[in-house]
Amino acid sequence: MKVEFINPFIASLKNVIGTMAQIDLVVQKPQKKGDELARGEVSGIIGMIGPQVKGSMAITFDKALATSIMKNMLGEVTNSIDDEVRDMVGEMTNMICGGAKSSLAEQNYDFELATPVIVSGTDHTIQHKVDGPKIILTFASPSGNAYLEICFDK
Amino acid sequence: MKVEFINPFIASLKNVIGTMAQIDLVVQKPQKKGDELARGEVSGIIGMIGPQVKGSMAITFDKALATSIMKNMLGEVTNSIDDEVRDMVGEMTNMICGGAKSSLAEQNYDFELATPVIVSGTDHTIQHKVDGPKIILTFASPSGNAYLEICFDK
Repeated sequence: MKVEFINPFIASLKNVIGTMAQIDLVVQKPQKKGDELARGEVSGIIGMIGPQVKGSMAITFDKALATSIMKNMLGEVTNSIDDEVRDMVGEMTNMICGGAKSSLAEQNYDFELATPVIVSGTDHTIQHKVDGPKIILTFASPSGNAYLEICFDK
Repeated sequence: MKVEFINPFIASLKNVIGTMAQIDLVVQKPQKKGDELARGEVSGIIGMIGPQVKGSMAITFDKALATSIMKNMLGEVTNSIDDEVRDMVGEMTNMICGGAKSSLAEQNYDFELATPVIVSGTDHTIQHKVDGPKIILTFASPSGNAYLEICFDK
């Protein structure tokens, strides 16, 4: 997978969370995800299909980060992953993937997005079934971490 | 959502599990999924995009059914949701959605499939973020249940 394909997702995630929730996320070095599975409390998953790409993206939020975003964005104080948190995660997933899609379209990488699916549950695991490499990035903040996984078949 | 769109998924799920694992699943009446969230031990999720459709499909397996499929299909006895079970669920998801895609193509409904994502975790929840109705179907067997959710934006 090319770096120019990953960077728009990194920029979009930082931009969306920074703009919407005033939380500055610091991205760590990309890692290839091996057997290890991402674990988190709530994730947004979205499928991507285009002439050059076929894959899936997942963004997992620590509970602390998800609730901080709720507080900063909507002024709502919650301590659990409820329907409103899941809705927010679905919205963020759409915005982040949509932002990356726009940047990539300018570089002539065109793809369409499926509708997001939000998964929650303590220590749920996510596994992308693709032939290509699985890239995972950690985004750190004092409010908790987010994890971005991008996987493509080709 | 039209019945002719749901039926190929029902037929394909019954056909794949029947053929691969010799388990006869009995489908119950489709229900609109409201606030309630599907709960299960392991799910395969796949995005679908086409000129007429944009949505997501999820198949959730009870642990008992997932381990029965492993035993019948591969002769492997397992009591937990491990990497091999998740791989099997990814494969089933691809086959079931692929079968439905072929039937629907004959009726001139064309869509492409994203790569499957497999989610596991006790009592994980799945929420499809779509504008249209969310349909959930229960498939019962003495070995445990499967749940099929199909959701479209339009």
